[in-house]
Amino acid sequence: METSRADFSDWYHSVLEEAEVIDSRYNLKGTYAWRPFGFKLRTLVFGELRRLMDETGHDETLFPLLIPEDQLMKEAKHIKGFEDGVYWVTKGGLSDLEVPLALRPTSETVMYPLFKLWIRSHADLPLKIYQIVNTFRYETKHTRPLIRDREISTFKEAHCAHPDQKGVDEEMELIRKAYDDFFAALCVPAVVVERPEWDRFPGAVKTVSWDVVMPDYKTLQSATSHDLGTGFSKTFEVMYENEKGEQQLCHLNSHGISSRIIAAVIGVHGDEHGLVLPPAFAPIQAVVVPVVFKGDKKKIESAAKKVFGSLSCRKEIDTSDDNPGAKYYRWELKGVPVRIEVGPRDVEKGEAVLVRRDTRQKKAVKLKDVDKEVAKLLAEITKSMKKKALEFHEQAIANAKSRDSLREADKAALPVLVPVCGDAKCWGKLEGSMKRLEFRGTVLGAKPSGKCIGCGKKAESIGLFSNAY
Amino acid sequence: METSRADFSDWYHSVLEEAEVIDSRYNLKGTYAWRPFGFKLRTLVFGELRRLMDETGHDETLFPLLIPEDQLMKEAKHIKGFEDGVYWVTKGGLSDLEVPLALRPTSETVMYPLFKLWIRSHADLPLKIYQIVNTFRYETKHTRPLIRDREISTFKEAHCAHPDQKGVDEEMELIRKAYDDFFAALCVPAVVVERPEWDRFPGAVKTVSWDVVMPDYKTLQSATSHDLGTGFSKTFEVMYENEKGEQQLCHLNSHGISSRIIAAVIGVHGDEHGLVLPPAFAPIQAVVVPVVFKGDKKKIESAAKKVFGSLSCRKEIDTSDDNPGAKYYRWELKGVPVRIEVGPRDVEKGEAVLVRRDTRQKKAVKLKDVDKEVAKLLAEITKSMKKKALEFHEQAIANAKSRDSLREADKAALPVLVPVCGDAKCWGKLEGSMKRLEFRGTVLGAKPSGKCIGCGKKAESIGLFSNAY
Repeated sequence: METSRADFSDWYHSVLEEAEVIDSRYNLKGTYAWRPFGFKLRTLVFGELRRLMDETGHDETLFPLLIPEDQLMKEAKHIKGFEDGVYWVTKGGLSDLEVPLALRPTSETVMYPLFKLWIRSHADLPLKIYQIVNTFRYETKHTRPLIRDREISTFKEAHCAHPDQKGVDEEMELIRKAYDDFFAALCVPAVVVERPEWDRFPGAVKTVSWDVVMPDYKTLQSATSHDLGTGFSKTFEVMYENEKGEQQLCHLNSHGISSRIIAAVIGVHGDEHGLVLPPAFAPIQAVVVPVVFKGDKKKIESAAKKVFGSLSCRKEIDTSDDNPGAKYYRWELKGVPVRIEVGPRDVEKGEAVLVRRDTRQKKAVKLKDVDKEVAKLLAEITKSMKKKALEFHEQAIANAKSRDSLREADKAALPVLVPVCGDAKCWGKLEGSMKRLEFRGTVLGAKPSGKCIGCGKKAESIGLFSNAY
Repeated sequence: METSRADFSDWYHSVLEEAEVIDSRYNLKGTYAWRPFGFKLRTLVFGELRRLMDETGHDETLFPLLIPEDQLMKEAKHIKGFEDGVYWVTKGGLSDLEVPLALRPTSETVMYPLFKLWIRSHADLPLKIYQIVNTFRYETKHTRPLIRDREISTFKEAHCAHPDQKGVDEEMELIRKAYDDFFAALCVPAVVVERPEWDRFPGAVKTVSWDVVMPDYKTLQSATSHDLGTGFSKTFEVMYENEKGEQQLCHLNSHGISSRIIAAVIGVHGDEHGLVLPPAFAPIQAVVVPVVFKGDKKKIESAAKKVFGSLSCRKEIDTSDDNPGAKYYRWELKGVPVRIEVGPRDVEKGEAVLVRRDTRQKKAVKLKDVDKEVAKLLAEITKSMKKKALEFHEQAIANAKSRDSLREADKAALPVLVPVCGDAKCWGKLEGSMKRLEFRGTVLGAKPSGKCIGCGKKAESIGLFSNAY
């Protein structure tokens, strides 16, 4: 690539287009098309998420996109969070619609009226469903593909109804583990925090977020899980009859992951040469490149094709007329984990050369062992991508024990963990004193020591400050 | 079911809801939610279509939903077909948009501006892509779930660019075979016709349709394939450089299948007891029902669970407290191809009873053979569903050789094939003389004999008249 990672924003835009993940030249700000290669990556990533949803007992469904105005407006707290950002359909054909229709910004107000009809008794609970759809936000801020879109092309949103708070707590714990597994599979580390009250999902009583530190040290909210309490149930009358025959409100929760997760994968792992994809999600896991010189062409290509045929992973062979350098460039850009070079000298020795995408290290292996060696290498790459990402993550996040070091982090806009008390007002004050950092929340399960960096009282948690996307 | 098939329309609406395929009680006409069971059916049907698309060399992609007004309006012939039926987004947040945005009614005007950027030389051709998305039509007519929706929840649309007419012809032939295979897999027969000029897709120079005869003898357009000529290429400047270095217009074609295909499957195969699903697409292929009496409960349920464990198909076991009748009713309604009854007498004999959903025939088999026997039965069911559907299809479509018999078919609104000349004006006149039937087009590959029923000249094709959805 010609763009350096030093300017991460430039690099990010370039790699998306050059590696043919998406094309954002569509004539409408904040929207883009997934190209075939990018779509395959999307399919693999959301395929794994789908598997996790099914495994944890969620059923896939599909609900309408359009929301009648009165229905969206029903939940006051909720709409307050969205009214500036909703697209409205006001015309059908040549005539005005009687009731304007919103494009879903999220689907609480779409789903819960049907939850009301589907849930009658405790026997119908828990109800756990999800859908993978596009959602819309009229972003007035600077847009950025996959990170801040007007059409969020891909959003997995799950919605669950339970008889009580215990049901919600258990579901949130289950999702905590499932999402942690998902991030681990993607080799992407995250800080899991509970957002402060002022930063919760509109209508939620608790919001948990998976924040990923990107190479520019900004954090990217990459997954969320919400306790919705009984607010929406009251509004939409989502009730059930308990064992005693009494009508009770359902306790609701929701959790979501959007195309942002792919931005996190691309951002965290990429390098100066383009994408670096975790083997489990790479649309092409190994590419065979015949290194052809005149005269040898037939022999080399035949050996390369034999190697290609022997591979049991997702594979490609590049028999184009381009020179080897151009071929290497192309497949490195696309983040193919292993390149298999088959040249005249290799063939003579009965060997091929495996090149790792992540470290670019080379290794000669016997032709008959290529498939086995590739499988081994894919596992090694996964392991070292995980390690490398974790190392960056850990060195990127500072630990501040004093106001001075917090101020330093603020000056440099670096993410930082600080001991804090349990008082949201104190967190707010701390945030107010920052120039560039925001208070992103308290780390889940953290064991703090020392004193709150704000008020000096005993620390009850660890707070994350960062410059967020 | 309490609704008889005699009133097909009533039956159709009821079965969709009672079998939990969809819920159309969402508070907006022409839209509905796919429930978990229906969504699984949708996944299996569109999974097979996706497989066929991939196999025939199409790459999956995803394009934006919103189309700026000027971009949609660029292709005059095309927009003429849609202007009455487009939903318009005119507001973002609290302000009016500068340019109104259409919800895609179809994606020619979304994709082709990007085709222009992706295609440079003959080496980039053919370009063959598809997406599976929702599309929108502001229907003012009576809506009907899956058949005439305002939000078409599921639409597979493929778009291809070729260097010449030969490329289009070959692609249309390939798709002819692929769609025929798809309909065969679904056990749904169709008449494949070329639509008359006045009934082509807006902007197409040729439209081929797969028309399915539903139980009410109306035909349902269930798949289409269009030759788009070079009209859209001119408008959107989709060009390529040929071997001689000359700029040439691409020849485009498209083909689509929507959620209507699921309406066809449900309509064609269902019966008085509910859905009857072709085994390959049934979300549950076999359900084990322990037929429990007091005392025997433990023994029966243990035997039933053993049978359930031995099954290698998509399976369910009904251990609810409902009586056997209620259980049978439930799973018949959902169209589960095979029910496996495990009762006290069966267990004593070391047997289970297999009940076919399509014919409701029973057969006792040894417990250890259940899995093997179910697999055999699923194959038999597929075969006889295909046969039964074809028999209905063939008896439903009359052959008229005289104006009198055509008039009779018109009176009864029955589909009918007639010999016709090659003159579209003559077809139009014939249609004009009908009260209830429309001229749906000429049967692809038909070998006519005799004279045109309209003008008496030599017949050149066979025309389909029908009352269409």
